[in-house]
Amino acid sequence: MRLSRYFLPVLKETPAEAQIVSHRYMLRAGMIKQASAGIYSWLPLGFKVLRKIEDIIHEEQARAGHIPMLMPTIQSADLWRESGRYDAYGAEMLRITDRHERDMLFTPTAEELITDIFRSNVSSYKDLPLTLYQIQWKFRDEIRPRFGVMRGREFYMKDGYNFDLTKEDALHAYNRHLVSYLRTYERMGLQAIPMRADSGPIGGDDTHEFLVLAETGESEVFYDSEITDLKFGSREIDFDDKAQCQAVLEEFTSRYARTDETHDEAVFHQVPEERRRTARGIEVGQIFYFGTKYSEAMGASVQTPDGQKVPVHMGSHGIGVSRLLGAIIEASHDDKGIIWPEGVTPFHCGIVNLKQGDAEADAACESLYASLTALGLEPLYDDRSERAGGKFATMDLIGLPWRITVGPRGLKNGVVELTSRRTGESEELSPEAALLKIAQIYGKAA
Amino acid sequence: MRLSRYFLPVLKETPAEAQIVSHRYMLRAGMIKQASAGIYSWLPLGFKVLRKIEDIIHEEQARAGHIPMLMPTIQSADLWRESGRYDAYGAEMLRITDRHERDMLFTPTAEELITDIFRSNVSSYKDLPLTLYQIQWKFRDEIRPRFGVMRGREFYMKDGYNFDLTKEDALHAYNRHLVSYLRTYERMGLQAIPMRADSGPIGGDDTHEFLVLAETGESEVFYDSEITDLKFGSREIDFDDKAQCQAVLEEFTSRYARTDETHDEAVFHQVPEERRRTARGIEVGQIFYFGTKYSEAMGASVQTPDGQKVPVHMGSHGIGVSRLLGAIIEASHDDKGIIWPEGVTPFHCGIVNLKQGDAEADAACESLYASLTALGLEPLYDDRSERAGGKFATMDLIGLPWRITVGPRGLKNGVVELTSRRTGESEELSPEAALLKIAQIYGKAA
Repeated sequence: MRLSRYFLPVLKETPAEAQIVSHRYMLRAGMIKQASAGIYSWLPLGFKVLRKIEDIIHEEQARAGHIPMLMPTIQSADLWRESGRYDAYGAEMLRITDRHERDMLFTPTAEELITDIFRSNVSSYKDLPLTLYQIQWKFRDEIRPRFGVMRGREFYMKDGYNFDLTKEDALHAYNRHLVSYLRTYERMGLQAIPMRADSGPIGGDDTHEFLVLAETGESEVFYDSEITDLKFGSREIDFDDKAQCQAVLEEFTSRYARTDETHDEAVFHQVPEERRRTARGIEVGQIFYFGTKYSEAMGASVQTPDGQKVPVHMGSHGIGVSRLLGAIIEASHDDKGIIWPEGVTPFHCGIVNLKQGDAEADAACESLYASLTALGLEPLYDDRSERAGGKFATMDLIGLPWRITVGPRGLKNGVVELTSRRTGESEELSPEAALLKIAQIYGKAA
Repeated sequence: MRLSRYFLPVLKETPAEAQIVSHRYMLRAGMIKQASAGIYSWLPLGFKVLRKIEDIIHEEQARAGHIPMLMPTIQSADLWRESGRYDAYGAEMLRITDRHERDMLFTPTAEELITDIFRSNVSSYKDLPLTLYQIQWKFRDEIRPRFGVMRGREFYMKDGYNFDLTKEDALHAYNRHLVSYLRTYERMGLQAIPMRADSGPIGGDDTHEFLVLAETGESEVFYDSEITDLKFGSREIDFDDKAQCQAVLEEFTSRYARTDETHDEAVFHQVPEERRRTARGIEVGQIFYFGTKYSEAMGASVQTPDGQKVPVHMGSHGIGVSRLLGAIIEASHDDKGIIWPEGVTPFHCGIVNLKQGDAEADAACESLYASLTALGLEPLYDDRSERAGGKFATMDLIGLPWRITVGPRGLKNGVVELTSRRTGESEELSPEAALLKIAQIYGKAA
């Protein structure tokens, strides 16, 4: 993309309403604009990151064997009356009356609707196991929305639902989600720690939240420092293998890691003192096993091999997609702006032309732009007639992990400058060598 | 995808509520399920086609230089009061009151919000031309929703907005959209004819609707038969070239083609009688140039090169994404089911194993499945232990364009059967030759 043709309305001033760094930088980098309290438009740069995160989630869900679909945002109140949650949900549910005076709502989650789809179509154990998921807009009418996309009212969420014949199978589905979420977050450059959680209004026996450590986190967290040494890495997992998934669960959840909601000081004190940590965390996902709570209430049963009719065991599993942008920025920034992890960066690298209009500099930039694009990479080329300082400040603010700086002086010596946003370190390289390095970083053959 | 692990709840019976063929087949093929009147869940097969259509639109919008973003579904009534449409819109607008008693609405279209984003961020002609678009859920509270996704209440729509300094530039944006829409629809296997249209509640001087001819269309259409011979084909277009885009507009709109809303019998009679056609059509898109209607009402102005402040010229341009699934099926089906065009098919081909459990047949299917997947294609492998007749009926119903049938008898002679869904013709080929043919059809190197 050429910046001269893009829509990147960066702001010099920080809007007064922004209290935390991710909110400030998302506004300043032209990623979002508030439409009304807790409701945001996703400007092109923000939308691009949102899509990258969405793509990673889809890829990792496919790897785990989960099946994508989509449920509507506006639902009838009837199903929610069946489960008993219509009255229980309170003022956070956005309730709507349509032109025929029917009670509708903007869905905050979809256990009821997915259970209805299941019971209408599945009646035999032969169709199990089954895990369906969606990535869809949700609404919670927060009384005091704040922190930008971190606690908005309209938010984008991945919600998945497993249906299994037995508790054992459902716990395997639970483990499969835990494993797949570990991979998912790591691909986004995040360390998200599974912590034992409270089941809250969904209700559930087993549940873990995934928390990203960050000073601005809403939750206080307590953990054994050994847990931050764990990496999922590139290990191969057979998601059908119950023992393998169970082993990952044990590896990642056997050490003490809890939020303030479930924290138990006595148990925490069994951790050696030098490994005890207290910090703050941002919740970016949660997995639940809740058994037959909804299937019994709503009559979602299947026939077993020996002809019995039993309610299915279910769980629901969520990732806060829009919130993740905030969490990633909270975990990865400096005083100049955002530092995107390579896995979610909106553009793979920036190209800064120090002297737009100089024939040689323009030609070198165009050539790099064409070569990067041909490799399947997306460079952002700052082709505006602006001062170098302004161009650097914009690149730093929007946080592309790599920047290639091209100017007449360097080109005389046959070099451009390649700069890492994270370390700030620069090296002079031939344009070909810079291209090769970027290609290698992103696993492309140059 | 292995069918044994997929969620494809096909129905034997046609639900009583379905009046038209696309609605019947989408329900029977397990693509959608009604959640409430005019509101649907997109089951996995339907969601897959929806994504394919969305991807084509994104690719073609990128080619035209338009920039993707996303606006929220729930908007404040305030902006709509500024434009005067809050009161004008009537009962089709889903009006909502939030917990703080603020007037909100589920957006049916986004001229107001995008104009607000523009005026907050752009003040100079230097930032023009600019075309922003989104693909997002919309809501119109139709009094009598019907025909499935064709006239639903919650629907998925691409809506794009151009901002230009002059009328001439804005008409170029209009032409660019027309060209890009022609390409877009053709890639989906549709012939969508641009017809002069009524501007309706958005208001506009220049506007064309795109109509797909189909017996079940809501509009009566009148056209010169020469128009159906026009193909956009694979021609290369420079979307910055005003003359080139204008020439395409003239080629595709100079012949008589109008809906009943703009039909003029006297003008129609200037078409030679043997070329005059009357038919029915489904609207799948519309482009508008509406000048300064919103920019004046909402104060969206830019500074010109000579320092004047002028309201920008705008247009809005829509594609009915969810409705397109219905339109494609109306245009492409037979009495056995859907016939997907290759560009939007949910799976590239089906593999039917005639004797699941037979070692040789299983191995041949697995090998084809792996080879097709390695080519970047998505086969749907019917690996269930069902009778051949049932497997064929399912494949015909869900409409995959190609089917490979594998059985012990054919394998004895070293062949499988490759069947075209459209023509019903089969040929016997070695598995390698069948693979090669499928690869060629989808432009993959085998």
